[in-house]
Amino acid sequence: MSDLERLRPGAVIGILGGGQLGRMLAMAAARLGLEVHVFEPGANPPAAAMAATTVTAPYEDEEALRRFAEGVDVVTYEFENVPTSALDLIETLRPIRPGREALRISQDRLTEKDYLTGLGLNCAPYAAVDDAASLDAALGRIGTPAILKTRRMGYDGKGQARLAHRDDAPAALEAMQGQAAVLEGFVDFSAEISVIGARGADGRVACFDPGENVHRGGILHSTTLPARIPRAVTADAVLIAGRILNALDYVGVLGVELFVTPGGLVVNEIAPRVHNSGHWTQDGCVIDQFEQHIRAVAGWPLGDGTRHSDVEMLNLIGDDVEDVARIVENSHCALHLYGKAESRPGRKMGHVNRILGPAGGAPREPGR
Amino acid sequence: MSDLERLRPGAVIGILGGGQLGRMLAMAAARLGLEVHVFEPGANPPAAAMAATTVTAPYEDEEALRRFAEGVDVVTYEFENVPTSALDLIETLRPIRPGREALRISQDRLTEKDYLTGLGLNCAPYAAVDDAASLDAALGRIGTPAILKTRRMGYDGKGQARLAHRDDAPAALEAMQGQAAVLEGFVDFSAEISVIGARGADGRVACFDPGENVHRGGILHSTTLPARIPRAVTADAVLIAGRILNALDYVGVLGVELFVTPGGLVVNEIAPRVHNSGHWTQDGCVIDQFEQHIRAVAGWPLGDGTRHSDVEMLNLIGDDVEDVARIVENSHCALHLYGKAESRPGRKMGHVNRILGPAGGAPREPGR
Repeated sequence: MSDLERLRPGAVIGILGGGQLGRMLAMAAARLGLEVHVFEPGANPPAAAMAATTVTAPYEDEEALRRFAEGVDVVTYEFENVPTSALDLIETLRPIRPGREALRISQDRLTEKDYLTGLGLNCAPYAAVDDAASLDAALGRIGTPAILKTRRMGYDGKGQARLAHRDDAPAALEAMQGQAAVLEGFVDFSAEISVIGARGADGRVACFDPGENVHRGGILHSTTLPARIPRAVTADAVLIAGRILNALDYVGVLGVELFVTPGGLVVNEIAPRVHNSGHWTQDGCVIDQFEQHIRAVAGWPLGDGTRHSDVEMLNLIGDDVEDVARIVENSHCALHLYGKAESRPGRKMGHVNRILGPAGGAPREPGR
Repeated sequence: MSDLERLRPGAVIGILGGGQLGRMLAMAAARLGLEVHVFEPGANPPAAAMAATTVTAPYEDEEALRRFAEGVDVVTYEFENVPTSALDLIETLRPIRPGREALRISQDRLTEKDYLTGLGLNCAPYAAVDDAASLDAALGRIGTPAILKTRRMGYDGKGQARLAHRDDAPAALEAMQGQAAVLEGFVDFSAEISVIGARGADGRVACFDPGENVHRGGILHSTTLPARIPRAVTADAVLIAGRILNALDYVGVLGVELFVTPGGLVVNEIAPRVHNSGHWTQDGCVIDQFEQHIRAVAGWPLGDGTRHSDVEMLNLIGDDVEDVARIVENSHCALHLYGKAESRPGRKMGHVNRILGPAGGAPREPGR
């Protein structure tokens, strides 16, 4: 598939990963008349119900990867930690969008920070940590409080240890379980925001309005639109997302988490995929992040992501899902469940987009 | 399932009919964490891709009907011409929503008109036609132009014959192929509008804004919101829909087609299901007609169907679907394809919701 060729209705998009992001991508593809095949190591993935075919196999199963790739026209992913060996094999057979460079960078926190600072963007102070000596040196430079994170495979607060004092160093290092890590200084921020950016195969960029995030226990709790930030900060945030998208020659949707500080915006992290902090777009915009991603991956022009409503997205985590009966009593709440049979602590079961009112309009009464 | 009991996430909704309406109902159910089983006589129905299970069997296959019903918690339909014998069997096993009365009435044009006029609503002049003598008598009363329609199984202009003069009577009768028919007088209308109404199991009613329809060749071509009608006519239209919903003790979504005439609104026909003229709700409202129907059928409260945007819905019929590449160039167009492999003249392949601007805002430039 050349960059200019567009998938036709009936063509097949392969998605690596079968979680809720894959499920919502598959629904968007179905709306556009495109078929989806999912590759997922785990049993009964949420995306399977919306996919024409699901291949259940580990990422090490070359035969399964080959069969999956040969059955699709283009491959994308809902999960950035797909092993490099799997991507190497797939790439010999089908194009991967977004491209390998975005994956390479975002799979490793150190590489990502080097890349972002190389673009002239601000990150929290950071240093590579491989052992007690390098941690000691990093703490000497960055100080405390600080946070030690594994370079790879961390998400939703996993693989992280906070250091309030230098005395916490041995325990933090122990928590890394021998994995290469990066020490990050704390950033004194007034807000955390996300920009969900999209870039088409034609190079055009469209960003959704920045949302304001609240995390609890390392997991996203809510995203609220509009973010309570000045117009100039909104513009800066969108420019940063655009800069990263262009630098990577990116095709698809990218999530960019930013800290709002007195000294300007600081990039926390990027995710080369649709992002939890973009779920509000399903009910705040006509074209949502999932459709925008599918359009880009299919080589179609991007749609209009203008925000028509103010929205608060709330994640339903673990037992939160027991509240569904109460949630649907509020007619302004749009419910999105992922079809997971079993709730577990910390497991994302669904989300709610509460409509606060028309974009730019008077705020609705709380509780409606 | 009592009227007050609500389905829990993971429960199963059975849908009779596997066309595009079933497909979009299945997507809405998936968003709400509900599973869908489809029953459809034809092969490769559009809804199958979004359903957990599809039973492919004729409506006369009692064993298949029984297996289908036993696998679900409640049964609904996307198609009102399901044979009575199939409904009789299903009803012994599971509740059917909307109920049998709505189906009985809408399956027969004569019964429907008798019912609506019995509610004090206006219909076009009509008379039952069984043979040449009754047609002659009907023409004597109603005059020409008039239209002869089969009482049962007509849709998208099928089973209809126009009579410009009384001389057309033999040909029109011939076109009925011996089926019982109804003669309808022409109504001199300034516009045709639709109201999509919903009624929950708790008796609450919510109607979407009326849309203005244009038909071409007996098939819906476009629906535009807002309809160009005075506020009082909007109120009348919504009251008519509410009256029918309450009279039928209806649970689910009902489409009501109305003619706007100098003498007031005239009911053209009703459809006890989600309706093509309600497809605009997917991109004009946060909660669309499909989710509203699923919520009602599942015993959940209705959602907020407030319109946030002005929309023009355009059906993609037959070869119109070849225009997809051009359509998606317009970023304000939300595309919905039904996954049908083969286009045929008159076949509904998809639709486009073109966003004209915020509801109540200044109109956008044409062509955007």
